[in-house]
Amino acid sequence: MSKKDVTKVVLDEVDIPKQWYNIVADMPNKPAPYFSSKTGKLATVDELQAIFPLELIQQESSEERWIDIPDEVRDMYRQWRPSPLYRAKGLEKVLGTPARIYYKYEGTNATGSHKLNTSLPQAYYNKIAGIKRLSTETGAGQWGSALSLACSYFGLECTVYMVKVSYEQKPYRRSFMKTFGAEVFASPTNLTSSGRAILEREPNCTGSLGIAISEAVEDAATHNDTNYALGSVLNHVCLHQTIIGLEAKKQLEYLDEYPDVVFACCGGGSNFAGIAFPFLADKLKGTNVRTVAVEPTACPTLTKGVYAYDYSDTGKMGPLAKMYTLGHDFVPAGIHAGGLRYHGVSSIISQLYEDKLIEAKAYGQNSVFDAAVTFARTEGIIPAPESSHAIKAAIDEALLCKESGESKVILFNLSGHGYFDMVAYDNYFGGKLSDIDYSEEAIEKSINNLPKLD
Amino acid sequence: MSKKDVTKVVLDEVDIPKQWYNIVADMPNKPAPYFSSKTGKLATVDELQAIFPLELIQQESSEERWIDIPDEVRDMYRQWRPSPLYRAKGLEKVLGTPARIYYKYEGTNATGSHKLNTSLPQAYYNKIAGIKRLSTETGAGQWGSALSLACSYFGLECTVYMVKVSYEQKPYRRSFMKTFGAEVFASPTNLTSSGRAILEREPNCTGSLGIAISEAVEDAATHNDTNYALGSVLNHVCLHQTIIGLEAKKQLEYLDEYPDVVFACCGGGSNFAGIAFPFLADKLKGTNVRTVAVEPTACPTLTKGVYAYDYSDTGKMGPLAKMYTLGHDFVPAGIHAGGLRYHGVSSIISQLYEDKLIEAKAYGQNSVFDAAVTFARTEGIIPAPESSHAIKAAIDEALLCKESGESKVILFNLSGHGYFDMVAYDNYFGGKLSDIDYSEEAIEKSINNLPKLD
Repeated sequence: MSKKDVTKVVLDEVDIPKQWYNIVADMPNKPAPYFSSKTGKLATVDELQAIFPLELIQQESSEERWIDIPDEVRDMYRQWRPSPLYRAKGLEKVLGTPARIYYKYEGTNATGSHKLNTSLPQAYYNKIAGIKRLSTETGAGQWGSALSLACSYFGLECTVYMVKVSYEQKPYRRSFMKTFGAEVFASPTNLTSSGRAILEREPNCTGSLGIAISEAVEDAATHNDTNYALGSVLNHVCLHQTIIGLEAKKQLEYLDEYPDVVFACCGGGSNFAGIAFPFLADKLKGTNVRTVAVEPTACPTLTKGVYAYDYSDTGKMGPLAKMYTLGHDFVPAGIHAGGLRYHGVSSIISQLYEDKLIEAKAYGQNSVFDAAVTFARTEGIIPAPESSHAIKAAIDEALLCKESGESKVILFNLSGHGYFDMVAYDNYFGGKLSDIDYSEEAIEKSINNLPKLD
Repeated sequence: MSKKDVTKVVLDEVDIPKQWYNIVADMPNKPAPYFSSKTGKLATVDELQAIFPLELIQQESSEERWIDIPDEVRDMYRQWRPSPLYRAKGLEKVLGTPARIYYKYEGTNATGSHKLNTSLPQAYYNKIAGIKRLSTETGAGQWGSALSLACSYFGLECTVYMVKVSYEQKPYRRSFMKTFGAEVFASPTNLTSSGRAILEREPNCTGSLGIAISEAVEDAATHNDTNYALGSVLNHVCLHQTIIGLEAKKQLEYLDEYPDVVFACCGGGSNFAGIAFPFLADKLKGTNVRTVAVEPTACPTLTKGVYAYDYSDTGKMGPLAKMYTLGHDFVPAGIHAGGLRYHGVSSIISQLYEDKLIEAKAYGQNSVFDAAVTFARTEGIIPAPESSHAIKAAIDEALLCKESGESKVILFNLSGHGYFDMVAYDNYFGGKLSDIDYSEEAIEKSINNLPKLD
């Protein structure tokens, strides 16, 4: 059997990387620093320490190229890492493309997505800093699940503020988190002043991610033994996710392959960062690899946003970040790819995009589900709606290769499975998925509300 | 790193077995043959050919020790096989046991359980026999999902009769099957005479597995281009599942380990057969390995049933099999381990049990969920309620080792994940799980209804 004929490449545990890759070391222009939403000045370490452990704050601004993965975290990674790299032979065949399509599959762990790559180190660094409990928010539930599991492993308590409408509509995700011992509240709650303020104004409020973030941050800021954890956007989260791309590189090397183009979906950006940064490292040294962030047309942060300082959350609790943003007031249509509905994107990715080192494209919801079903029927995995954006882009590229006759090597990140998203598939098959895109007006309006910094 | 220190053993694709192991070759007493439910005499190949392809009928009565896995099937196995073997280090630690606990994890494929091991060859043999469509029944939905995927791969149509109450309560499983192109009907339907007969008597009937089997068998028997597929019980299904144990043996060999005891849950029996038969092969040659079938106290087929000829389905459409049975009229309590609610068990397993070559034990539902949650929190995988029976038995054995100080090697089959069973976990955490066991009276009554053969 030729190496190129394999269905998947599964490395040994000893091949799990020992360090994460910090792209900031190699960036021609560094990402912009955070500003405090309270003082309007550069955010200080002291301020950040109210909700984050020192080690993560240091990673946030580090310019070291390689950062050691603690043994305790690497031991946990061994439960499912190295994750498999697949050759999409079934998909290639049905497309009739000369391209070779590979995908890295991050859905083989208990929580079903890449989020566990960062929830584990976040729980670990908080644990060794003496923290007893982590608070966080969750919408669709993937991040809450990943943090619950990580806290269970490291003996931390976990409090999850789950957007009320999801809490009621997604009881499975809620019980999933409870199985791992987490405390899950429907947000807005009566437990925080920000929650109470909302409920006073609007007793039947069904919640939003913005409100849930405010509650989780307040919980952490007002309890000494409690910190806050975020599942995307931040530099240290992007850093932890680079394990995906580092493994994928080794796996492709084993096959004597190197990608012409790398696709990943992009919400806050950690998923894209995870697979793309290790290849971008080569591009920054002069190779030609393209990396493409794929977003929904309903929330087109990179393709339609502006590059400016903005609040990282609607409640204005977190720091201000310079990033591509649609404005913190922007409320995208209720597409099923809930993980891609963030108004901004990682500062690192924003700077790379501004410097034209990465590309971006956007797709409508129905075309993404078309691609997801084609993928499921040929590759046997039902993809998460978020990950399906990368699939759609990969299929389009493979069809271009069919026209041109080029045998490009395409790599994409299948960041999670869709087994908790069957309602979305049901709606798709029932013809009930809307393709409501952004409205130019709404974006213009929310961009006009961007904060003015000195 | 010592070999024994690994978290998991993942073999290469080339290590996927090339043959299934047929234990019938080595049994001191062969399993009893089937009788026709129509004639009351030995079932003939002609009768069986109305619903099965010849190749599977031949496997059903084969006494060849090794049966080749077709290349086309092995190619599909490569998508997720060899499946990982895990050392349950987290679980061992929390139990404080000197035992070494290993588990083979069959939940890493798209359908989340071991069922795909047999749905693929069943679809393949039907395809090459010129069949265009497969019909089957499904309760909880695992088997229907696995057959849908297999049919999608091999270009067959697939019709699933899903018990109406599950069809309504488990929309996710239904959409899962539709994603793979299957046609899914709520049974009883108006499409078959057996369905219509039921609906005439009872228009609001919520269905049962017995009714769904009758509809699927009738569909196959009345359409020339259509065959029927069953997900457990039959000899050829047990045969296909032996790939689990064959791989596990190789993986343990790599660690220089050999199990003292092997646990698997047991409903129709294919899951137990899959992991246990390759080790039983050694026992039949004189080694000391124990294999234990674990069942729910609510449906205690091996531990409380009788060994006799009985109908394989409540509708009396399928053949009569000699097996341990609670009687075809027995209706077990509605426990969440739906896959273990079958009144009988594989003829092969029954004969082995009668010959005291294997053991059986039974557990109540709440104790099984206690074990499932302990496992989830230490190993990071939420197990299916069925598989959790094996976990419970493994934990009990490990605790015995703790008392005695023995370092036994324990192996169990984690046959599937529980991500579609979160309602069950919800009920468990809410204290709503009943521990209703079998009633002696009910068993006595249904056993009195066993058919009398000449």
